[in-house]
Amino acid sequence: MRQVLHRGRVGEFGLETVTLPNGLEVTLEILRHPGAAAVLPLHDDGTVTLIHQYRHAGGGMIYEIPAGKLDPGESPEVCAGRELEEEAGLHAGKLLPLIALKTTPAFTDEVIHIYLATHLEAVEAAPEADEVIQVLRIPLSEALAWIRSGRITDGKTVVALLMAPQAAAEAGATVA
Amino acid sequence: MRQVLHRGRVGEFGLETVTLPNGLEVTLEILRHPGAAAVLPLHDDGTVTLIHQYRHAGGGMIYEIPAGKLDPGESPEVCAGRELEEEAGLHAGKLLPLIALKTTPAFTDEVIHIYLATHLEAVEAAPEADEVIQVLRIPLSEALAWIRSGRITDGKTVVALLMAPQAAAEAGATVA
Repeated sequence: MRQVLHRGRVGEFGLETVTLPNGLEVTLEILRHPGAAAVLPLHDDGTVTLIHQYRHAGGGMIYEIPAGKLDPGESPEVCAGRELEEEAGLHAGKLLPLIALKTTPAFTDEVIHIYLATHLEAVEAAPEADEVIQVLRIPLSEALAWIRSGRITDGKTVVALLMAPQAAAEAGATVA
Repeated sequence: MRQVLHRGRVGEFGLETVTLPNGLEVTLEILRHPGAAAVLPLHDDGTVTLIHQYRHAGGGMIYEIPAGKLDPGESPEVCAGRELEEEAGLHAGKLLPLIALKTTPAFTDEVIHIYLATHLEAVEAAPEADEVIQVLRIPLSEALAWIRSGRITDGKTVVALLMAPQAAAEAGATVA
């Protein structure tokens, strides 16, 4: 049984009364989310493009990879390619799926489909009016060091960067 | 300005009207969360203990590392040690901080403090009544393969496993 408390931009927040596998009945707070896609652009020279974006819930400007919610009927791959163009001004010649990540399954069904983008070409960026974004390009090795030093803390971004070296090697892409 | 729509077990869900750095005023849906801790137990023989847990929002049983919300006033390290004992029946002789992960900063301020636990000793597990948990122990290398095959998809768990080999090597812990 589901009681919707709010319908909005990020999804539907509500209470769900369910019977657990052990027979206990509980009421859970759940945000039902449409799903999202995110993409790490890896250049031929071993650098990656990241965005530095204002996130009110995240406490300010944080480092991320381009990402966004799926439009109705949109495939994760199309969404990833679209967000990469809009937010980072890059067109992906190839998109390699890395993982379908459950961001925090204690209270949301959000799944972010994460891709590695290679064979990149510059296009015109088109961020939305409510997106405050700076684009930066650094070596993948430096981005990995930023995870260990606590500068990169965003879940999808950490996962994409940590999976990139092996995925790129297996795909035959260059990583400096 | 914040309008609380719901106060519950996972936090406070509400609408926040804020002015972005570019001057635009927007209303955002945000779940304010107390924070959490999670812990990957790495045994001397290079195996890790995971839990297979029922998550309604996650769509069923999923593989995770032990984790839980911070109790009021509780430090992340104490919470990590407590959850490790309650959910996995293991006491950590050493807890090494890996990262403070922002799970999904588009709509929540949740931060999960992730640790690597070593020097493990068996204790009695004490899961809560609403926790449906099976404990399993597999080689770290197999857990990493489960990420690539799509069997492990939980954000905090993926991050802990991917960070473990280097962190363990730097800490002088054994990884088979």
